[in-house]
Amino acid sequence: MPETITLYTAKVCPYAHRVELALEEAGAPYKAYQIDLQNKPEWYAPKVNPASKVPAVAYGGPATLPESPSPESTKIAESLVLLEFVADLYPNSPLLPKDPVLRAKARFFIDAVGTKLNPKYFAFVHRGDAGGAEGLLQGIDDIQKLLPDEGYAVGKDYTIADAAVTPFLARMEISLKYDLGSFDVGEGVKVYETLQTDPKFARFRKYFNDSKARPSFQKTFDESYLVESYKKRYEAARAQKKKTD
Amino acid sequence: MPETITLYTAKVCPYAHRVELALEEAGAPYKAYQIDLQNKPEWYAPKVNPASKVPAVAYGGPATLPESPSPESTKIAESLVLLEFVADLYPNSPLLPKDPVLRAKARFFIDAVGTKLNPKYFAFVHRGDAGGAEGLLQGIDDIQKLLPDEGYAVGKDYTIADAAVTPFLARMEISLKYDLGSFDVGEGVKVYETLQTDPKFARFRKYFNDSKARPSFQKTFDESYLVESYKKRYEAARAQKKKTD
Ligand SMILES: N[C@@H](CCC(=O)N[C@@H](CS)C(=O)NCC(=O)O)C(=O)O
Ligand SMILES: N[C@@H](CCC(=O)N[C@@H](CS)C(=O)NCC(=O)O)C(=O)O
Repeated sequence: MPETITLYTAKVCPYAHRVELALEEAGAPYKAYQIDLQNKPEWYAPKVNPASKVPAVAYGGPATLPESPSPESTKIAESLVLLEFVADLYPNSPLLPKDPVLRAKARFFIDAVGTKLNPKYFAFVHRGDAGGAEGLLQGIDDIQKLLPDEGYAVGKDYTIADAAVTPFLARMEISLKYDLGSFDVGEGVKVYETLQTDPKFARFRKYFNDSKARPSFQKTFDESYLVESYKKRYEAARAQKKKTD
Repeated sequence: MPETITLYTAKVCPYAHRVELALEEAGAPYKAYQIDLQNKPEWYAPKVNPASKVPAVAYGGPATLPESPSPESTKIAESLVLLEFVADLYPNSPLLPKDPVLRAKARFFIDAVGTKLNPKYFAFVHRGDAGGAEGLLQGIDDIQKLLPDEGYAVGKDYTIADAAVTPFLARMEISLKYDLGSFDVGEGVKVYETLQTDPKFARFRKYFNDSKARPSFQKTFDESYLVESYKKRYEAARAQKKKTD
């Protein structure tokens, strides 16, 4: 029986969202505690995560409020470490297959998310780099090519491979659909349309829609919160840019 | 019973070396096949690893020569994926502890190697960046701080956490000791002396020496080959630099 889990998280954070998805998919009991990243509680770094980031987990130890974490609980950080941790705590969940080859496929997929997709997402949406739209579509295609013909990243079950990518895709979609990013006005919506309609991305669309339809996603994703947060971030930046242009 | 393993590797490559160490530590039977990275066989990318890098493993399938890999074997790439794969194939080996918390510690250590140590090693030795010596010593100290008072990264057993770092430390040591890197002449040896004598690095020294003393390392590391290879790489670059100075 796993011990108690407190997850320190933040709605905006895709890394933290990964871990929420895994905990939901495992059916794990856990307490989620929101950290305000703009105004982190002063106990967070010294008592939970010296790197001062979410996600982090306090595991085991005496029952306490999340705001007063016990020195006796184990603190674990880093989203990919935590995905494996949840899979290890729930070895009979579908989070990781039993077959070593399929486990390797799941981890290879996660590696590709970190090296092929996410850098392109950051380049286009966060930095507005030149050529970013084509780069992002390429990154999505790289991931799409790793998908089997049906189901999720490594088969019929939703695993840590899927939990690693869904949060980034969901945030990317909001940026594109509402045209909220560092790209030029209209560029986001254009990529959104391509992803919605181009037959080339049919497999990707099905995969992403299936992932979003899951209760784990429904329960852990607050779309309107993110839309508001991105509006603040990017509309302010654009107004600023207009002034100085 | 695991199936047959062919490891495509190269003596210079620290990523490939990780996997050799894990296989040796697990006592796994495997065939190692050297890929000449300067002159890769034309069958390697299409038949083994489309990314055209080592390490890669061909797992299972009919018995073939490494030069004619069968389409029926599973091909797996990426050193960290392969470390987990070997640990999964040999679940009773000491490569990963059974306790989920210790497994998380091992993976957190591996993450730190990739984000805190290796970028500093590349910056100093490969690129000769300004401030690189201090950066590297800081990176080593970051890793040192994660070590328990005794033993290896997560306890008395040598795990995939140790296999992930040893190859980089061993190559770094050669660059420093023989002063072979992109840093200014004499800078490498200076860092080497610090690591050898400064009491601050006593824990690191013990850890690294214990790792090097293991049969797995002795069997898989060819020091004189690396010295020759680094001499060629860096002495040529320095001669070039002198000319253009
Ligand atoms: N490598 C970390 C990255 C986590 C991360 O960057 N979290 C961000 C929020 S998405 C954070 O907490 N940043 C610290 C801050 O905003 O002060 C992981 O995978 O968990
Ligand atoms: N991320 C890969 C990196 C592997 C890698 O970069 N290997 C190098 C040699 S150390 C390689 O094969 N490079 C291709 C080349 O030299 O053409 C891993 O962890 O396995």
